Amino acid sequence: MNLKELSHLLGLSQTTISRALNGYPEVNEETRQRVMKVAKETGYRPNRAAQRLATGKAGSIGLIMPISTNHSSDMHFAEFQSGLAEVAIEHDFHFVIMPARMQDEEQAIRWLVASGSVDAYYIAYVREKDPRILMAKSLPLPFIVHGRSEGLELDYPYLDVDNEGAFFDATRFLLQLGHQRIALLNGQAELDFAVRRKRGLEKALKEAGLSLDPATTRHGFMTDEQGYRGMAGILRLPNRPTAVLCASTVLALGAVRAINEAGLKLGRDVSLIAHDDELPLLKPEHFSTPLTTTRSSLKAAGKRIAERLISTIKGVDNNYPQQELWKVDLVVRASTGPVPRA
Amino acid sequence: MNLKELSHLLGLSQTTISRALNGYPEVNEETRQRVMKVAKETGYRPNRAAQRLATGKAGSIGLIMPISTNHSSDMHFAEFQSGLAEVAIEHDFHFVIMPARMQDEEQAIRWLVASGSVDAYYIAYVREKDPRILMAKSLPLPFIVHGRSEGLELDYPYLDVDNEGAFFDATRFLLQLGHQRIALLNGQAELDFAVRRKRGLEKALKEAGLSLDPATTRHGFMTDEQGYRGMAGILRLPNRPTAVLCASTVLALGAVRAINEAGLKLGRDVSLIAHDDELPLLKPEHFSTPLTTTRSSLKAAGKRIAERLISTIKGVDNNYPQQELWKVDLVVRASTGPVPRA
Repeated sequence: MNLKELSHLLGLSQTTISRALNGYPEVNEETRQRVMKVAKETGYRPNRAAQRLATGKAGSIGLIMPISTNHSSDMHFAEFQSGLAEVAIEHDFHFVIMPARMQDEEQAIRWLVASGSVDAYYIAYVREKDPRILMAKSLPLPFIVHGRSEGLELDYPYLDVDNEGAFFDATRFLLQLGHQRIALLNGQAELDFAVRRKRGLEKALKEAGLSLDPATTRHGFMTDEQGYRGMAGILRLPNRPTAVLCASTVLALGAVRAINEAGLKLGRDVSLIAHDDELPLLKPEHFSTPLTTTRSSLKAAGKRIAERLISTIKGVDNNYPQQELWKVDLVVRASTGPVPRA
Repeated sequence: MNLKELSHLLGLSQTTISRALNGYPEVNEETRQRVMKVAKETGYRPNRAAQRLATGKAGSIGLIMPISTNHSSDMHFAEFQSGLAEVAIEHDFHFVIMPARMQDEEQAIRWLVASGSVDAYYIAYVREKDPRILMAKSLPLPFIVHGRSEGLELDYPYLDVDNEGAFFDATRFLLQLGHQRIALLNGQAELDFAVRRKRGLEKALKEAGLSLDPATTRHGFMTDEQGYRGMAGILRLPNRPTAVLCASTVLALGAVRAINEAGLKLGRDVSLIAHDDELPLLKPEHFSTPLTTTRSSLKAAGKRIAERLISTIKGVDNNYPQQELWKVDLVVRASTGPVPRA
């Protein structure tokens, strides 16, 4: 059964059938139900090229894959992408992915939009006053920002998690346990989420009359290696911190190795809280000393962004606010404990 | 400086300039050098849409992203993709990615080819007598298979690693250490690499007059969870194995947790060898007891496949054989030791 045959059978145009099967609102619900029923009974499978002609849509979401010479595959990117894919497959959408170095990302977005190969796209790894957002607003395709851009006085659609609140809560918890010297292993300093997490830590310290020591702060790629090197360096300081916040469980993986190698016990000599993106490989409860975390699912964010983009493309009302800020849980496990006695 | 201006400056057609900058062999070397020099001096950056018109190429590689309801982001897929991307970015290529469930992969390939949005593609997660390879040979686009398909009497381009040899060597090493009961935590039973790894184990056992006990064999997704559950079950068997082969360091992560929880010491009570795809997060030397591995870089495979596909698209001779079989190293670390005395 092809689309032409289905069109004869139903007495409807091929365009109407395609739109009905794809849930476009131009087709009334009764017709849509009738098309769905017959398509199911006859085992019809839509031809994507025909769909594209009928709807004028590419059926695809564009994304930029950040490439750096300094690190390899990024678990965070892969996990987010798996969330996108789970929703995309339900709507028969595909991806057009442009790998780009940081300095070429604006050009890559221009290309995605000009190519006609995508219906919408999203912007991630957002920086302070990110010029890509201003550019995206001037281009004719729908987009969503994953994250927000500090210092940009613009109205734009986004989904972000409360990074500042997460690290504020984590720090306050450490202060309650008596810790005063708290280190930070953060993402790249220019990324918006890293700016906000650092600020959360600083605000909580300030409330307690304390401040963050730059000597115990590290910024960089969120890799196992960075976590290891950062933590090893911090543990060698004369007046070493008794607690550390890690911006990812990937950083924590290396940090825990450095703590073990220094002969220190996690949760007793050093307390650690990591941000948990719910990467399936690095479950905080599976560390030999289970990790206390601030938790927010990257995969769920990927799913939400795909849902919002696809419903925008289809012109369907999705009831989601244009700007979403997700709260982050603080989950206490064994890697945190009272400050050790001097 | 745009292409039109560059064309005036050089007195060459825009098509010739595009082809020269993209290394297509229709342009002679002298002209190409002249174009490159002037483009560099004037700071010209090519416009991809113009390139596409000039070369008749989409400038993209197609791939299928396997989706399953049973597991989330796949580190192996992400690492391979990072290798592809590293080469793609050098040649200004992008990806068109179609997420597909296993039963829909043939349809997804047909769509990729029919869409005109890709110049070439590759097939991965190959199964025995894989019908996609026969189909790919009948379609008009170049492709490469990552892996091979057991039982298929066809000539097709591929890149594979010597999976059988890897697990044969690993098993022979365990036999030399006195182990006789060797368990297997493998990938999905229908995947070609899993078939060959199991066969390598069985061949080495047979040479020693032994055989593989089905009760100590597990097949499934290569996740941490599967490794944990598989190993925990095997350790509860009455006459439990003294050694185990894991088809991935991801499976080993879970297996090591199960070994620890059972109060056994890795490398003394139980020996373990894992296949190491060189996933950056799971370096075998970073496990608390460093893992003995069979090693082959997935990222290097991704890079090679991108190089081969792109040179085929450009009609450039790449000197790589059509069928490549990479040898696998056996790297001995602390997770293997002599069989414990009964």
